[in-house]
Amino acid sequence: MRYTIKNVHIVRGNQNNAVSYDQWLRVEDEKIAAIGSGEPELQAGEEVIDGKGRWLTPGMYNTHGHTPMALLRGVSDDVVLQEWLGNNIWPREALFDKEVSEAGTMLAQAEMIRSGTVAFQDMYHIDMDAVFRTAQDSGLKAVLARAMIGLVDQPEQKRRLDEAVYLGEKWDTEGGSRIKGMMFPHAPYTCPPGFMKEIVKAAHDKKWTLGVHLMETRREKADYEKENGVDLFDDLMNMGFFEEKTILTHTVHMSEKEMQQLKGKPAYISHNPMSNAKLGSGIMPMMQMRENGLSISIGTDSTVSNNNLDMFEEMRMAAFMQKASHENPAVISSEEIYKMATQIGAETLGFANAGVVEIGADADFLLINAEELHLQPKQNISSHLVYAASGRDVTDVFVNGRRLMKDRELLTMDEEKIIYNVNRQFDKLEKVYQSKN
Amino acid sequence: MRYTIKNVHIVRGNQNNAVSYDQWLRVEDEKIAAIGSGEPELQAGEEVIDGKGRWLTPGMYNTHGHTPMALLRGVSDDVVLQEWLGNNIWPREALFDKEVSEAGTMLAQAEMIRSGTVAFQDMYHIDMDAVFRTAQDSGLKAVLARAMIGLVDQPEQKRRLDEAVYLGEKWDTEGGSRIKGMMFPHAPYTCPPGFMKEIVKAAHDKKWTLGVHLMETRREKADYEKENGVDLFDDLMNMGFFEEKTILTHTVHMSEKEMQQLKGKPAYISHNPMSNAKLGSGIMPMMQMRENGLSISIGTDSTVSNNNLDMFEEMRMAAFMQKASHENPAVISSEEIYKMATQIGAETLGFANAGVVEIGADADFLLINAEELHLQPKQNISSHLVYAASGRDVTDVFVNGRRLMKDRELLTMDEEKIIYNVNRQFDKLEKVYQSKN
Repeated sequence: MRYTIKNVHIVRGNQNNAVSYDQWLRVEDEKIAAIGSGEPELQAGEEVIDGKGRWLTPGMYNTHGHTPMALLRGVSDDVVLQEWLGNNIWPREALFDKEVSEAGTMLAQAEMIRSGTVAFQDMYHIDMDAVFRTAQDSGLKAVLARAMIGLVDQPEQKRRLDEAVYLGEKWDTEGGSRIKGMMFPHAPYTCPPGFMKEIVKAAHDKKWTLGVHLMETRREKADYEKENGVDLFDDLMNMGFFEEKTILTHTVHMSEKEMQQLKGKPAYISHNPMSNAKLGSGIMPMMQMRENGLSISIGTDSTVSNNNLDMFEEMRMAAFMQKASHENPAVISSEEIYKMATQIGAETLGFANAGVVEIGADADFLLINAEELHLQPKQNISSHLVYAASGRDVTDVFVNGRRLMKDRELLTMDEEKIIYNVNRQFDKLEKVYQSKN
Repeated sequence: MRYTIKNVHIVRGNQNNAVSYDQWLRVEDEKIAAIGSGEPELQAGEEVIDGKGRWLTPGMYNTHGHTPMALLRGVSDDVVLQEWLGNNIWPREALFDKEVSEAGTMLAQAEMIRSGTVAFQDMYHIDMDAVFRTAQDSGLKAVLARAMIGLVDQPEQKRRLDEAVYLGEKWDTEGGSRIKGMMFPHAPYTCPPGFMKEIVKAAHDKKWTLGVHLMETRREKADYEKENGVDLFDDLMNMGFFEEKTILTHTVHMSEKEMQQLKGKPAYISHNPMSNAKLGSGIMPMMQMRENGLSISIGTDSTVSNNNLDMFEEMRMAAFMQKASHENPAVISSEEIYKMATQIGAETLGFANAGVVEIGADADFLLINAEELHLQPKQNISSHLVYAASGRDVTDVFVNGRRLMKDRELLTMDEEKIIYNVNRQFDKLEKVYQSKN
């Protein structure tokens, strides 16, 4: 694979998110092979893409989600978490079958490509193999986990863990460097300590990243201490958490003491600002975490708590929540936020040398239409990307050099078929749900 | 003017934001003349628009902004208010001429149409007549004010007030029912009490709505009391504020006592959540205001503090800020937020019988493409509009029955020319600014 994109302004995604004007960029063998100005020297028959009027930027790395749940977008909003989960989400999930799950993940993956995401993390408990197969075809990078809830008897716990290991191994083997397995116990309030310990051990044995939903709501810590008689965070450390690479998702209610306990550990935070806001979880103490040296990336969570997968909006929300709650516009810059969604996201998901537009890096990048009204005047590109742009401005998506979208047309997925199928599966599900409720 | 839109799902914009499926809607003489289901009876030669795959919804009423400032999008972010205004915005504004101002307002008005806004409020101090002339042509509804800052000698204060009155009268006369004048002193910290009193008197004499930026930052009230020896809010009441229709913009730091002082008065709040967040002003106490019976609408402020004019995003931010800060997803519903951006916005701007899709109402409505991935599954339209949609999903915009955008093509403005001119004027301005700084 070799082609060159010319006449393009390149946003590098490095520390200051520098812009190089009127450049060309060559892709060879899944990597960015060369960048230069002036006229590129081309090989005979080499494909050339004209990037005039476009910005070439790093793609978005979405570090948390549940793609099959996209099928349930909008079924429940504006209610408290217990009612949301207990009355509206879980009863519908109980009716999911493989067709439903596959329709959901195809919708979410197509939506992610359309809005400029190049890699995603996913955890779900129903037919995660559909997520894997879809990612194989869609061309997205993915880090996948068969989610585990442990509120079941020990044989069933064991069955779930075995399945998680089996699937993770399969994805690791068949997914090449683009798709990887990980281990993801749902949360401390759904996985008893004994089960949790076995999961941690399995993750360490396999050298997989360990993930967990943690401290999403204020009551989680207090409840844990009441039930188990020990501090939640201390107990996680006793179980072996944070010894190897760990992604902690949400962490809205993490204390200073806990942040300090993570110092020097391979712990990464997946910040989901829109989900945390919409579900009323609260505002994550991002600035305090940064002061404690933690790596923070950005995730969307599922479309049931978001309700779209546009990482550009998610960047804005991450910035605005901090500026508003601290009553200080200077607490975080657009450059820092952009890095969270790109370079730090890539690192969090374990894609080394990605998330920047530099020679030798993975060819994961976007073309963005600079001719949109809301991106005028054209200067201050770095500001526009975080504060004005939308995933809808993305015209082209490249992952490991493969073009997944061309001039807003998906190349690896059939959009019309996906929309038809999602609505068919939703109607099927809702008919059964309504008859039972 | 008479035409019919058929095969469309109609979002009514009433109390529960009800949806009527597979309807037709007839426009006659700027109004919605009829709504029905089944096949419409057509007059010979009547234009018919096929709304298949579209939602027909009320348009957005943006109750606060400064359109000429769109030219400065992205020139300054992530700095505290004093530095932002004093070092980055005001020195550039000092270089504005009529060409610059006109280029900015054309950009903003085109951008508003593109993202589904049908009416806007605007206040600015340089060439507001360009805003008026542009609105005359663009077809948008507008409520305009020649902004007044009073930190000048009395003759200059008088000149500014006279100009504001002169222009307001002109717009009132020449703008028909679509464009109206109003009176807008910039803020209590920029208009001395004596000048403020004269402005209020002029507004009451002319029977114009009075607007003011109020309590945007925490220090505004304390500073005022220190400087003038009286409580800011009490003093405003003494000047005659709130006796007639008043729009208070921002009001991030309004107290319970002040909310109660407004009870039963014709006071309307223009809530600008993204501007308040990005500038670090804080989170407006919306729930407390609602409990006190205040009418709250939504505005974008200018693209310098926002940085786009997409009212759909603004709705989300308004909802999410409240849900996050109260740590309660149930504090406000999508239906209530939608009403703020539509029906209450229309009422705030003085467009009676608008902001809903009902027989006899102004024909101010949008068509939205329901075939977008992020709006699937297609059910739960009311949720999708607030939590998943983007201004980019709007395909058609109608104001008083006139079609301003058709299948995403602007019909009343030349987009290409606007983009060219904005960048030319920006380059001109920036060259002078850089040479002086």
